Amino acid sequence: MYNMWLQYNPVESKNKDMWQEVAILNDSCIATSIKNELTIAIEKMFQVKPAYSTSNDAKIVIGIIDELGELVDKQQKHKFADISDESFLISYQNDQLLVTGKSDKALLYGVYHLLREVQHGHDITKLNLLDQPKNSLRMLNQWDNLDGSVERGYSGNSIFYENGKIVKDKSRIKDYARFLASVGINAISINNVNVWKEETYFITKKYLPEIKEIADIFRAYGITLYLSINFASPIAIDGLDTADPLDVNVKQWWKDRVQEICHYIPDFGGFVVKADSEHRPGPFTYDRDHADGSNMLAEALAPYGGKVIWRCFVYNCVQDWRDRSTDRARAAYDHFKPLDGKFHENVILQIKNGPMDFQVREPVSPLIGAMKKTNQIIEFQVAQEYTGQQRDLCYLIPQWKEVLQFDTYIKGKGTTIEDIVAGRIHPYKYSGIAAVSNIGNDENWTGNTLAQANLYGYGRLTWNPELSSETIANEWIQQTFTSNENVVNVLGDMLLNSWEIYENYTAPLGVGWMVTPNTHYGPNIDGYEYSRWGTYHFADRDGIGVDRTKETGTGYTSQYEEPNQSTYNNLDSCPDELLLFFHHVPYKYTLKSGKTVIQHIYDTHFLGYEQVEQLVQQWETMKDNIDPLRYTNIRERLALQIRNAREWRDQINTYFYRKSGIPDEKGRTFY
Amino acid sequence: MYNMWLQYNPVESKNKDMWQEVAILNDSCIATSIKNELTIAIEKMFQVKPAYSTSNDAKIVIGIIDELGELVDKQQKHKFADISDESFLISYQNDQLLVTGKSDKALLYGVYHLLREVQHGHDITKLNLLDQPKNSLRMLNQWDNLDGSVERGYSGNSIFYENGKIVKDKSRIKDYARFLASVGINAISINNVNVWKEETYFITKKYLPEIKEIADIFRAYGITLYLSINFASPIAIDGLDTADPLDVNVKQWWKDRVQEICHYIPDFGGFVVKADSEHRPGPFTYDRDHADGSNMLAEALAPYGGKVIWRCFVYNCVQDWRDRSTDRARAAYDHFKPLDGKFHENVILQIKNGPMDFQVREPVSPLIGAMKKTNQIIEFQVAQEYTGQQRDLCYLIPQWKEVLQFDTYIKGKGTTIEDIVAGRIHPYKYSGIAAVSNIGNDENWTGNTLAQANLYGYGRLTWNPELSSETIANEWIQQTFTSNENVVNVLGDMLLNSWEIYENYTAPLGVGWMVTPNTHYGPNIDGYEYSRWGTYHFADRDGIGVDRTKETGTGYTSQYEEPNQSTYNNLDSCPDELLLFFHHVPYKYTLKSGKTVIQHIYDTHFLGYEQVEQLVQQWETMKDNIDPLRYTNIRERLALQIRNAREWRDQINTYFYRKSGIPDEKGRTFY
Repeated sequence: MYNMWLQYNPVESKNKDMWQEVAILNDSCIATSIKNELTIAIEKMFQVKPAYSTSNDAKIVIGIIDELGELVDKQQKHKFADISDESFLISYQNDQLLVTGKSDKALLYGVYHLLREVQHGHDITKLNLLDQPKNSLRMLNQWDNLDGSVERGYSGNSIFYENGKIVKDKSRIKDYARFLASVGINAISINNVNVWKEETYFITKKYLPEIKEIADIFRAYGITLYLSINFASPIAIDGLDTADPLDVNVKQWWKDRVQEICHYIPDFGGFVVKADSEHRPGPFTYDRDHADGSNMLAEALAPYGGKVIWRCFVYNCVQDWRDRSTDRARAAYDHFKPLDGKFHENVILQIKNGPMDFQVREPVSPLIGAMKKTNQIIEFQVAQEYTGQQRDLCYLIPQWKEVLQFDTYIKGKGTTIEDIVAGRIHPYKYSGIAAVSNIGNDENWTGNTLAQANLYGYGRLTWNPELSSETIANEWIQQTFTSNENVVNVLGDMLLNSWEIYENYTAPLGVGWMVTPNTHYGPNIDGYEYSRWGTYHFADRDGIGVDRTKETGTGYTSQYEEPNQSTYNNLDSCPDELLLFFHHVPYKYTLKSGKTVIQHIYDTHFLGYEQVEQLVQQWETMKDNIDPLRYTNIRERLALQIRNAREWRDQINTYFYRKSGIPDEKGRTFY
Repeated sequence: MYNMWLQYNPVESKNKDMWQEVAILNDSCIATSIKNELTIAIEKMFQVKPAYSTSNDAKIVIGIIDELGELVDKQQKHKFADISDESFLISYQNDQLLVTGKSDKALLYGVYHLLREVQHGHDITKLNLLDQPKNSLRMLNQWDNLDGSVERGYSGNSIFYENGKIVKDKSRIKDYARFLASVGINAISINNVNVWKEETYFITKKYLPEIKEIADIFRAYGITLYLSINFASPIAIDGLDTADPLDVNVKQWWKDRVQEICHYIPDFGGFVVKADSEHRPGPFTYDRDHADGSNMLAEALAPYGGKVIWRCFVYNCVQDWRDRSTDRARAAYDHFKPLDGKFHENVILQIKNGPMDFQVREPVSPLIGAMKKTNQIIEFQVAQEYTGQQRDLCYLIPQWKEVLQFDTYIKGKGTTIEDIVAGRIHPYKYSGIAAVSNIGNDENWTGNTLAQANLYGYGRLTWNPELSSETIANEWIQQTFTSNENVVNVLGDMLLNSWEIYENYTAPLGVGWMVTPNTHYGPNIDGYEYSRWGTYHFADRDGIGVDRTKETGTGYTSQYEEPNQSTYNNLDSCPDELLLFFHHVPYKYTLKSGKTVIQHIYDTHFLGYEQVEQLVQQWETMKDNIDPLRYTNIRERLALQIRNAREWRDQINTYFYRKSGIPDEKGRTFY
């Protein structure tokens, strides 16, 4: 369980002997990590203990291009001219396997890639590939608190903190770094974006000596450390009478602070900031805007190459449910779009994939790509907050791929999210992908062992968004469990269907939010209906959905470029799966599928439950192929999922039957 | 704020001088309390410091009958023959005022009564009254936890515990004892009926020495101390392998325990027990019934005169909402009625006033009086859990009076709850009233200062259920604030209307439970609809209500005697205010009031909100007559109430409009 996808199961290979000597020409801290990983991996896969040398004659030679000297010819060197420092070359030539690149990080990624190839039984003497990450920033956000809890954590407690202290034994952090590096993650923020009282002091001497130790661990795996900060820190820590970003003393305070941080962590990544959001402090308090707020921090960080990652999750969280004109979906775009061009070049806006909050189905946020002069990254949530909380199986790669492949039309047809966040559309200095992590101190890291696939897939997808959901699933299954074809097929099928299954038995047709308030697990159809969170479905006896059209609704659709704007705005062209996100329709409205809305609700909910029954059956056939610990863990989770699916099915169906009075065409049971 | 109704405001009196010497012939610890109270009261009211003597010639003489000797004639002595030890005589004769009775407790009650007469400006030379409590057990249950929290507490933290310890400074407990004694409370359980891990040890040496101190304080005010216990204590404390009530070792264990408790507290009251209820342990675990469980404890307590107060709040709290045949309302009767006659004579069953759980409107529990051979007390809730949580004003005396005046017909017409719990119907050895307290360590004890009236009224009503709600309100206002006629009228009006107002804007027509789960404040119409708590309203697009009839429903109505059974069972005769508790009806069903159910819902909710607006206006006219602290406290609470009433009004109306589609006759606003 613990080793996730770095199981390094024994493999058969005719090239086994090549591993007896490995030359590592580099001597950075990352090179040490490489050696460490190779030792673990080679011993496990081949029962061979590799010897390390710096000999150019070894069968396997790992080194930065300049270190390789004559081993790399001019033509190969030329290939590297225009690619990033993280790109690597794996090349078998003259009876030698070379792993090289322009930096030690490149070597690390090259080695992990090589080990992946080996695990899949590929012949390494056939390798000749140059691989580069499509996104420069590939980040994880930990929502961990100093008391050891994890906000929206479903895998036990924090691996970073316990009982108000940073953990003494940091070996688990090191293993986490290994997992992340193996899939190409290069940045991490280690504390919750909601920065509470004591965590505010993370940027002071009180905690920096120990945070430095964590930074050292991650650095050896090519991962840059960031900290979430409290915008009101100058007041909280040093009793300044303001945190106004234009105040001279406040500016100086942050400069002093950054100087101190960089004394401990010279390559400090920068700050992650949740400001003016859900009662967190921010520049609005001082009648300043978010450019003022982020630029002030950016100025302090600039001399050290640090960045400000500023979250766009800003909306009115004390909305009156009676007010139908305010639309939370509009908020990020309305707040940030007018500020385009005002942000410093080391400010990056972090935008959630959808306009609401990580629902099982949302349209893509119209803000992504809409700001041409402002660095942007997209934010996903690996933690399954609204998607089953790692009790229910929900493999999220297909969801993320759908988002990344969405065509925004911002610079004409073919302007995908994938291209925008990779920085290929606008001249962003920094861009990429961030996500909320899903790990904790459970033995298997992710509560449900199958949820490891989301962390794995997140990293792989972030490195290369062109990988298919199937490829990622297959990779993960084979590295995690076995190459047994039956297992790969059955488990692959389970993973690949799971998002659709989860959608089937939960909130229908993109409407979202029919979930238990606060905990966000299990159904509560009206749970958010009369609340202050801006999250409504407006179901009445006649129909359901949120009218976000230009003509009669909130006008949210106008935030999209054409033709998306018209596609969503017009009932006739709006895709079924987002219908209730954009329109309020009668229960008898006929979908493009040919079904009425109400019959669709009934059918998908009965189907979703049956599909979970099938997941259980599928998993039971795996019993002889999976070790008992992991088999049992997943079976227990599926037992929870089936209970949850039953609850969703019956509550949703009963609710809508009671409200609409329309019987099920197939006469199935309501309550 | 702190002094509640023992303000002892200055009064004019021609008999002021009588108080210069007071003879107290008794010398018990209660006599000391009497002196203490007289000193406080007389100084405040008359600016006179009374001298105490034991002289039969004093103008005011306080003593037990036997101590008074010749001062009491034979005729007077004769009057006492058949009345309880707690009854007192106040008699002005031969230029002397006598306060007497058969015990020191009687003197205490007599003195408090006398002081009340004085505060109301009555002429004490006209006094000649013999007063006796109608109920022998007049109890409060504290739901206080050792960590300082109070379950369902709305007045700050516990006055008994803080941070896992019993409070060192017990002066506030003494003042609480004064307040309770002043209204005749004679029993208290000092810890939560949900007995958690550490509180389980209250019955051991670890806590008994300090609990003894609390018992000493209460004893001096005539109040007997009880403890809530964990039925699984033998396992939890001493590692026995069972808590089976028929096990010899378990029986002996409890006997030893009681012996130790009574070593510290010789007049220990006994145990309060919540067993097999909401996941608390109990005899069901061992296939024993509640007679087995309670009798075992009763045997241990009997030698010391102790009692077992066994709560009947036993129901299936993991019900499937799909299951319409199980009816939580039936549970207490179904569980306990068959056991009548099996309980020991020192077991008392404590039965909540209604069959559910302290809703703003419920029918009276059919179990009360239904067991002819088993001691019973009724349980009220002074804490406003479901009735506004001491933010909203809700004077509960009218509710309790309605319950007490309910005619059960159990022994023919006129068999009221009042008579049953007073022990006048069945030959109960013990009977009376218990209630959950509403106090905490807020400066004013009850959060909302006006909630003090519920504690005052509970005590007064328990002593004498014949007192009217108006009388109690007037007494409380005058003692707490002023005799100013305008204040008495306006505030009296506010108090007396407040229960109806609260009912108007919350769940309609007896259906209950449309409240935020867990916290129980504010509306959440479907909050308990799909839950495991057995608390449903079954609203659909056509109608609402729970069918509890014999013919088509759960048959709960059959638990009542005739004619109540038929009254409730028949739609035509069922009272409007309980209609939805007993019947499922269409929204257009016409009430006895002439309105349809739906129009009743709309009208009461608009009205309820307007009535709260009026409460605010009424209170604002009090500004010049009330000290600023208390004025402001109440104004702030009313501001919270109006927000709450608006939320209830709009959510309830909108919910039912959306569901029924029936417009308001008056065209008012829904959302």
